[in-house]
Amino acid sequence: MSSSPLLANLIEALRCLPGVGGKSAQRMAFHLLERDRERGLKLADALREAMQRIGHCGRCRNFSEEPLCTICAGSSRDRQLLCVVESPVDLAAIEQATGYRGQYFVLHGRLSPLDGLGPEELGLPQLAQRLGEGEVEELIIATNPTVEGEATAHYLAQLARAGGVRPTRLAHGVPLGGELEFVDRGTLAHAFGGRQLLE
Amino acid sequence: MSSSPLLANLIEALRCLPGVGGKSAQRMAFHLLERDRERGLKLADALREAMQRIGHCGRCRNFSEEPLCTICAGSSRDRQLLCVVESPVDLAAIEQATGYRGQYFVLHGRLSPLDGLGPEELGLPQLAQRLGEGEVEELIIATNPTVEGEATAHYLAQLARAGGVRPTRLAHGVPLGGELEFVDRGTLAHAFGGRQLLE
Repeated sequence: MSSSPLLANLIEALRCLPGVGGKSAQRMAFHLLERDRERGLKLADALREAMQRIGHCGRCRNFSEEPLCTICAGSSRDRQLLCVVESPVDLAAIEQATGYRGQYFVLHGRLSPLDGLGPEELGLPQLAQRLGEGEVEELIIATNPTVEGEATAHYLAQLARAGGVRPTRLAHGVPLGGELEFVDRGTLAHAFGGRQLLE
Repeated sequence: MSSSPLLANLIEALRCLPGVGGKSAQRMAFHLLERDRERGLKLADALREAMQRIGHCGRCRNFSEEPLCTICAGSSRDRQLLCVVESPVDLAAIEQATGYRGQYFVLHGRLSPLDGLGPEELGLPQLAQRLGEGEVEELIIATNPTVEGEATAHYLAQLARAGGVRPTRLAHGVPLGGELEFVDRGTLAHAFGGRQLLE
């Protein structure tokens, strides 16, 4: 139906973005063409650069275009704390929400033998080596509270103990601002069992 | 906070898309980097090509990378019907919703002297010339039913009559599937006044 094959092509290409369907893609394309061609071109450059040049940090496996990411390369972060996350999104969430000043290790997945994700794929030999170096004192395990995330946490805790490192896990419980009525049973049972003394 | 300046740059650039804030931009960037770099690169190419090469059709002023858009260049559309719309989005909506087989003229705006949009800016001399050629028999005025859109419609109707062309306007009324209770007063009054004989 389009009067322009390039426009149809752009609308189709925009649908690779998560949460963007045909209607939004069309709106985005028209918006850029009508009002913001310059920023559209900047976006094209940013996309190309990012897709081609961003690799992984050799130390923490997070996204980075340098051999070491800025967190690993910098000297300001506490090297005795190491936080393990499943994905870079989780790392970003922790950076934005907490005042954590330690370092990270990104698994890019969770143990899931059926999907072909074993210790090798998650970089666990590399993690074990780092734990064995003696610098890390606490391994903060921040995998997701799913079945596979918990299994991975269990495995990571064993790895930590083998390297003489204290493993800790993010606290589970009732979310702030939540209402007990709407909290799922598992979480409520966990929060109830893990109740703490008010001081 | 980002471990990668290129990633931060991409997230910022994605915010030029309408309806995309910081959180969605981050989700999009991570999604492309983790799962879909190839389509990310395709999007970069599609964006660059579209921003640089899409201009306007010399006849209908719609977006086109050729001197004439596919609708104007093709021979399959009825040249006696000409539909005037404010923007290419409106054209796309009509193409998708109706079985209209005539041609179009895109104003890229509406008469709005305060914004510096007069007849010249909307290409009305070009439209008047086309109406004077004698090929067009009906000018379907599909500007938006806003104050400025109505004023523009009025002007266009005069232009059509001056060229000996019959001007028509899209019907106003109660939307299909709407409930009278929730229809705004102006629309309801219009629909009531314009009631039609059931046959």
